[in-house]
Amino acid sequence: MSNQIIQPRTLKGFRDFLPDDMRIREKVINTFKQEFEKYGYEPLETPVLEYADILMGKYGEEAEQLMYTFEDRGGRKVAMKYDVTVPAARVLAQYQNQLTLPFKRYQIQPVWRAENTQKGRLREFYQCDADTFGTDSIIAEAEFIQMGIEILKKLGFENFFAKINNRKIIDGITQYAGISKDQFASVCTTIDKLEKIGEDGVKKELEERKISNESITKIFEVISQKAESSLELLDKVSSILATIPEAQKGVEELRKILNLLKAGGIKETFYKVDLSIIRGLAYYTGPIWEFEVTGGNVGSVGSGGRYDKLVGLYVGKDIPAAGGSFGIERLIEIIKERNMISSDTQTTILVTIFSSDLLELSFKTANSLRSQGINTLLYPDENAKLDKQLKYANKKQIPYVVIIGPEEKANNKVKLKNMKTGEQKEITVV
Amino acid sequence: MSNQIIQPRTLKGFRDFLPDDMRIREKVINTFKQEFEKYGYEPLETPVLEYADILMGKYGEEAEQLMYTFEDRGGRKVAMKYDVTVPAARVLAQYQNQLTLPFKRYQIQPVWRAENTQKGRLREFYQCDADTFGTDSIIAEAEFIQMGIEILKKLGFENFFAKINNRKIIDGITQYAGISKDQFASVCTTIDKLEKIGEDGVKKELEERKISNESITKIFEVISQKAESSLELLDKVSSILATIPEAQKGVEELRKILNLLKAGGIKETFYKVDLSIIRGLAYYTGPIWEFEVTGGNVGSVGSGGRYDKLVGLYVGKDIPAAGGSFGIERLIEIIKERNMISSDTQTTILVTIFSSDLLELSFKTANSLRSQGINTLLYPDENAKLDKQLKYANKKQIPYVVIIGPEEKANNKVKLKNMKTGEQKEITVV
Repeated sequence: MSNQIIQPRTLKGFRDFLPDDMRIREKVINTFKQEFEKYGYEPLETPVLEYADILMGKYGEEAEQLMYTFEDRGGRKVAMKYDVTVPAARVLAQYQNQLTLPFKRYQIQPVWRAENTQKGRLREFYQCDADTFGTDSIIAEAEFIQMGIEILKKLGFENFFAKINNRKIIDGITQYAGISKDQFASVCTTIDKLEKIGEDGVKKELEERKISNESITKIFEVISQKAESSLELLDKVSSILATIPEAQKGVEELRKILNLLKAGGIKETFYKVDLSIIRGLAYYTGPIWEFEVTGGNVGSVGSGGRYDKLVGLYVGKDIPAAGGSFGIERLIEIIKERNMISSDTQTTILVTIFSSDLLELSFKTANSLRSQGINTLLYPDENAKLDKQLKYANKKQIPYVVIIGPEEKANNKVKLKNMKTGEQKEITVV
Repeated sequence: MSNQIIQPRTLKGFRDFLPDDMRIREKVINTFKQEFEKYGYEPLETPVLEYADILMGKYGEEAEQLMYTFEDRGGRKVAMKYDVTVPAARVLAQYQNQLTLPFKRYQIQPVWRAENTQKGRLREFYQCDADTFGTDSIIAEAEFIQMGIEILKKLGFENFFAKINNRKIIDGITQYAGISKDQFASVCTTIDKLEKIGEDGVKKELEERKISNESITKIFEVISQKAESSLELLDKVSSILATIPEAQKGVEELRKILNLLKAGGIKETFYKVDLSIIRGLAYYTGPIWEFEVTGGNVGSVGSGGRYDKLVGLYVGKDIPAAGGSFGIERLIEIIKERNMISSDTQTTILVTIFSSDLLELSFKTANSLRSQGINTLLYPDENAKLDKQLKYANKKQIPYVVIIGPEEKANNKVKLKNMKTGEQKEITVV
């Protein structure tokens, strides 16, 4: 390699975050952290590498093919984090004696997937999850939905809502329609497309999947119900599925969630029951939800639900769990597109250096400003012309510049220049 | 795998950070971020995986053997981040047109090394770096040393200091002592042990390395100089090495740094010139430094220096650079051992649920508290006995508990209990 230049480049699907990006990311991440902590979720971090068998315990073959796995130098089969849910379940099992249940944790960390980047998919991206372990109460679900609404508001979104459903109602609908176990998964996958391909599209696809007309009619008898409110919709569904205990239980859970959201003073424009959302079939066991930002073809920016069976894989006994994930990368993209958060530099003042013999004075002044809590950049070259330093401040969009020349030195003052207005005034820095 | 439990475990050298750990880590990391930004360093993050040839450009064979490398699913040879300096150099080359020089960046991210864990070494740990690219002025060095001192103070340390040296002086000393190029590295390695094995130890090892007595005497003529102050020490060294221009240049650089630190009002107890510190030989080209916390066998908690040749490997032309790394993992360990930062929960109030029919009232109360900015945990189970909920608050060390029973409901009040003193009072939550 010797004298050859090493070609600088990034792997496809991986990104560098330069300062402008970082500032927006950090503001978004800090909003999540603050809100998670406001709701009593506690921070957790797990390693990037895990024993491969631990990460592969839960996922299907498809996921395993997307996992970054390799043999480490000790011959262990290891894998890079695929999501943050399985590591959290592993932690719950491993530190059973140390962690008190119920345990609410949040985790904001990158994960890796060997996705096809031609579709614009990322191979490294952050996940942002919050979950409650060790309770079967729908308080966990209601609080998460409420928190999600609050977070989206805090981030500056106005038009969005949570779509809420329940796996138990989905099971009830398919039972009611006489769908066999074999057909269950493909029927659900098709129903999930309702918003995308419309009622006719779903009907057509169900026909193609050899679902009887009678079954299709029964499915739509339920999922196309309309009502003034979500509670009313639940009443209708409840009466259609009156003979199916599973569905009744699911309706009752959603009623409780809706009542809590109402008690919490959340406006009904922010949430609604939507019987067509399905989410991960192998995973969820109760209420499920999706957050959708309206306008600009954005779609889902968060989702979650109850999954009472996962943790048991590691603990050996079921530990009920409910929570979800925010699509933090997608949210950041929208926030950038819509200029919702400023990427302005965090530096308030550039202290220039008039000449090398006045360096110590500038150094001292920069220090005084910092000790007053002001983010201050001292131009790091005492031989640069003042003009170059001022241009630098403009390029970096630093709002103020301090100049200390011989005159200012003599008067024991410094010149403070507002780079936007050009206004200058002499001030004393102690 | 089916019904078998997946054994929960972590790879050796990798760690989970449970909430108590996380809270301390976050406080430490936030202190670094705030101080870095106070000095005008900007945030940067780079991917975990890079093309292996990029990461291997700089390091010797030893490092390559410690690197986590593998072939990805596309047959590319990739490696996990080994440090954050090389990725920063790569970024500088890759985004030359986008980044304005001088560029000050900080980077706080995990790195991976396939270390021998039997020596207690970690395989995944955070690095915490700040560097200034694009200036050859010693302002970069002086500011970093000053910032390091400020950060250690902010973290709560009182007894620590920076040891400062210059590669140019080391070169000068070895020239003065007539050390050949072949012997240079091994002589430096031995001198670096001065504090550890003492003067006699170093002399003995140099003899073993076949260094002549005359050379050893000359080395010690310089490095065993004592003086009242660091500036005085530099005067003495300067006159001994009067005929060696390289050394004169090195002395002059350190003089400037010391003068700036003095101008900045930093107490001299916090820094001193120490001619025995060496640092990475293949890497640094000018001033170098180490931060040492005294007491408790702690040793170095940070280091850095000027390295004007690294970035050129990626850019094709030299870009001067100076900066360093804080041993954030070691600092966190000391902070925990010495109880310098509390790991107390961030939750201020637990709102209990008196009975399931009073759930909505508790839910509403928790919301009101949160909207007032109070971190509030609603006990996530409406069927738990009050006593269990109070015990939970104690176990989690949540300082306050709110109780809302039928009586409180009737009076439109809630009971607020201080869990430390047992004191209770009725308050109104709107």
